[in-house]
Amino acid sequence: METVVVALGGNAILQKGEKGTAEDQLRNLEKTSERLASLVEKGYRLVITHGNGPQIGNILIQNEAAKNKVPEMPMDICGAQSQGMIGYMLQMCMRNALKRRNLNIPVATIITQTLVDADDPAFSNPTKPVGPFFTEEWAQERIRSYGEKWIEDSGRGWRRVVPSPQPISIIEWPSIKTLVEEGQIVISTGGGGIPVVQDKDGFLHGVEAVIDKDLGAEKLATMLGADKLVILTDVESAALNYSTPGHRIWLNEITVDELSEFLSQGHFLPGSMAPKVEAAMRFIQNGGELAVIASLDKVEEAVQGRAGTRLKRSLSDS
Amino acid sequence: METVVVALGGNAILQKGEKGTAEDQLRNLEKTSERLASLVEKGYRLVITHGNGPQIGNILIQNEAAKNKVPEMPMDICGAQSQGMIGYMLQMCMRNALKRRNLNIPVATIITQTLVDADDPAFSNPTKPVGPFFTEEWAQERIRSYGEKWIEDSGRGWRRVVPSPQPISIIEWPSIKTLVEEGQIVISTGGGGIPVVQDKDGFLHGVEAVIDKDLGAEKLATMLGADKLVILTDVESAALNYSTPGHRIWLNEITVDELSEFLSQGHFLPGSMAPKVEAAMRFIQNGGELAVIASLDKVEEAVQGRAGTRLKRSLSDS
Repeated sequence: METVVVALGGNAILQKGEKGTAEDQLRNLEKTSERLASLVEKGYRLVITHGNGPQIGNILIQNEAAKNKVPEMPMDICGAQSQGMIGYMLQMCMRNALKRRNLNIPVATIITQTLVDADDPAFSNPTKPVGPFFTEEWAQERIRSYGEKWIEDSGRGWRRVVPSPQPISIIEWPSIKTLVEEGQIVISTGGGGIPVVQDKDGFLHGVEAVIDKDLGAEKLATMLGADKLVILTDVESAALNYSTPGHRIWLNEITVDELSEFLSQGHFLPGSMAPKVEAAMRFIQNGGELAVIASLDKVEEAVQGRAGTRLKRSLSDS
Repeated sequence: METVVVALGGNAILQKGEKGTAEDQLRNLEKTSERLASLVEKGYRLVITHGNGPQIGNILIQNEAAKNKVPEMPMDICGAQSQGMIGYMLQMCMRNALKRRNLNIPVATIITQTLVDADDPAFSNPTKPVGPFFTEEWAQERIRSYGEKWIEDSGRGWRRVVPSPQPISIIEWPSIKTLVEEGQIVISTGGGGIPVVQDKDGFLHGVEAVIDKDLGAEKLATMLGADKLVILTDVESAALNYSTPGHRIWLNEITVDELSEFLSQGHFLPGSMAPKVEAAMRFIQNGGELAVIASLDKVEEAVQGRAGTRLKRSLSDS
């Protein structure tokens, strides 16, 4: 049986314009789970990862709004909360979708820490915006009082930025592997995983940072020795000239070298398509069989290597 | 190797008078993890459950404070958030405590749903107070607008009450069992588990309720076929005449029949010692070998049947 790591995009949980109520999220996750359950039905072993941007953003707003009554939690703990929240909804929806197919396969969310390097250059140059927009006055106050870094974001207001270090290791991978080998479905590494660093004695500590979810998914897929990594989003594949629709060229089967060239030419949006491309390339370079960037609607074809931007080990080896 | 389910009391995470900052919780969980790691060192297989009262209370306050900006989440989702939050901190602290002993044993938190009966009488009579105290005016507004049930609590203000149904089944028990059988440490069923009901077609749905954490731990222990259930709290054992210290009688080794008699005589505080006693009795009645109610400080002696109020299968069978 092939093991597939599926990285869900934000649209698998929330659609544009939705407020993010529990009903919104459950409705979207029900649809997502139907698509994923059909992969299980076809015999794939499934590990599911997901983003958490809007959810952690909301948790940060809630922390801020209640800070005079309840201690604010640091970002690693907010991330853990979002993993619990999304994991619960997704594992319930997955179980229901499997039930609909008369499949009785256990589904479990594992709270996941991702090791990063305390010396990662990202820590001296935070770039990843998190949470909502605020006024300059507000931002300056947070900078003064908490030492946070805030930036003015293209006229839309001020936003906190945090480091986005590279994932080095998925701490809980042995538990995830144990469950996958038993044929169970695992939800893990939500939001790229909770970022932790190791001190000189080998003890773990949480840090205020955000790991790119697709790079986190790649690390997990590689550590599990998964066969395939499927990165889902709301477009059908990576594209050249994406921002000029008339000249847009969708990429389908491609080699790591070609894709790497396009990446260095700046064809892919930082923080959006670029890390997906990077994750796909790393997975193949690390020995994976197939990496695909595709739309959620086409997940079945994507896993079979018939849709999306796909990198294959055999092609890149030739 | 014996499998022990340990149900942590609130004092394992927060001490009386603490505000509940991340630092408070991590400091307490570090100490708790040291005690639990010494059990692992002695060769016990460990499954850890925990309460979530103060944490879910704080999450409810945060939801309320930000409700004009961010959609309020229902209680099942808040419970899932608290499982993620506490699970993350505990699994990090446990891993560090094991590292200190040169033990490299995987620790993982599994987000856990607990099945309850939609026809449980608790749903027509909510009794479990959750979250902070409010004014009567506030309570009446929530009753009118949301159909919630609120009660006046002995002159201290108004508090929301929710149903506290009986746990029927731990949905994720097969995943937990798989990990335990591999010798891994699992954190699960936090706050008694996220309450879900099954509709007539067998699909799961979250409900607004709170499951007693010790009764949830018992259900988990029984479903796993654990050898021992250790319920930890801040007193050394169950006691008769607890509220009149001069006449207090601590209970040590005891039979289910004797304990049941004391329970029916009203010796144990509802929502506090009573459910612990009930959980311990159920575990033995369901075939468990040893159930102990003891203080966190004495966890090692408790597991060995040398401290706390202890029920044994052999005694209750005689």
